[in-house]
Amino acid sequence: MLDQVVCLAAVTTMGVLEQAYFSLQVIYARRKFSVSPPSTSGPPQFERVFRAQVNCSEYFPIFIATLWTSGVFFNQGVSSVCGVLYLYARLRYFKGYSQSPQERLAPLYLSARLLWLLIAFSCVGIFLCFWRMYADGDLLQLLGA
Amino acid sequence: MLDQVVCLAAVTTMGVLEQAYFSLQVIYARRKFSVSPPSTSGPPQFERVFRAQVNCSEYFPIFIATLWTSGVFFNQGVSSVCGVLYLYARLRYFKGYSQSPQERLAPLYLSARLLWLLIAFSCVGIFLCFWRMYADGDLLQLLGA
Amino acid sequence: MLDQVVCLAAVTTMGVLEQAYFSLQVIYARRKFSVSPPSTSGPPQFERVFRAQVNCSEYFPIFIATLWTSGVFFNQGVSSVCGVLYLYARLRYFKGYSQSPQERLAPLYLSARLLWLLIAFSCVGIFLCFWRMYADGDLLQLLGA
Repeated sequence: MLDQVVCLAAVTTMGVLEQAYFSLQVIYARRKFSVSPPSTSGPPQFERVFRAQVNCSEYFPIFIATLWTSGVFFNQGVSSVCGVLYLYARLRYFKGYSQSPQERLAPLYLSARLLWLLIAFSCVGIFLCFWRMYADGDLLQLLGA
Repeated sequence: MLDQVVCLAAVTTMGVLEQAYFSLQVIYARRKFSVSPPSTSGPPQFERVFRAQVNCSEYFPIFIATLWTSGVFFNQGVSSVCGVLYLYARLRYFKGYSQSPQERLAPLYLSARLLWLLIAFSCVGIFLCFWRMYADGDLLQLLGA
Repeated sequence: MLDQVVCLAAVTTMGVLEQAYFSLQVIYARRKFSVSPPSTSGPPQFERVFRAQVNCSEYFPIFIATLWTSGVFFNQGVSSVCGVLYLYARLRYFKGYSQSPQERLAPLYLSARLLWLLIAFSCVGIFLCFWRMYADGDLLQLLGA
């Protein structure tokens, strides 16, 4: 059973490590630009690093939910590959945003495209699951239950 | 096996799509009110849209965790219905908050009530699972192991 | 099957309740220091409570993802104990940060250490799962498929 999700778990753990890396970068930026908590305002260089981390954090649960739905209902291998590419795009986004707001755009669009792909896989997988249940008569049972 | 969680996966994907919609609204608001990243301050109209999205993002992982716990341990159908209603309440919250802080309140209270319901279902489901394990003698084994 | 994850579900629900508690504290702090939404700036006492809640929310999905990976692939009991300790550290972090930025540090380091422990358990569990698949010849099949 576990071998059907082990790649998804591996990508999830890689994603967690990436988020830990982003958090550390914010701590270093706080020290470098002397921005003490709870403040989050400072020079643009600090605010870019901070916003890059916040944006990646915001998308993390969306990414994990989509990765697992796609991986369980559609295909583990394909979803895991998309997941690794997404994490790579997010790394490039973070590094780009740290340089300038302009440089965040290309990897941001790439990460968005990969997320839409995972969402599309999820929709196909869920539709096929409902379809199989309908063909087997399970769906009518489920709705009647 | 998958048919026992397919409705939860469908609600999860709907939630992901809703979050994508909210994110797009922030991008449009950034353009409309000329608030360039990494800044998040601007006219109140922008800040309301921005805060509405941040608040929904914050609650997204809490919602997903509760939806699945309730759906797996209590009942998939009931939890999925609550989940869809929650997403609808969040949509009305987002649209209300975009208009005025006052108009966010009614749907916010509705979404909170639905979340508490899912939490209550989760607690009941987890309690019943422990109870069955206790009745079967599995719990004593688990604690003794 | 469910008894293999019921403790993880219980810790997850405890985490959700903790996040609800933190959110309520921000609402009380907003009233006490007259900071109306969508504003998030105010006296330092308010900003500390607000940032404590935001930080805990940011780490919540990372914590849940790691808790479940570690609990499913490594060991449910050990992961659940780490999870409960993590939630306790977060509670002390929140209360400490509400007092002063300095007092947030000790419980923050404790929560970070527990998260690294869960990440280490996840890595071990995932590695062992891949190893078993390799030993059984399943991994070669998976890669060849």
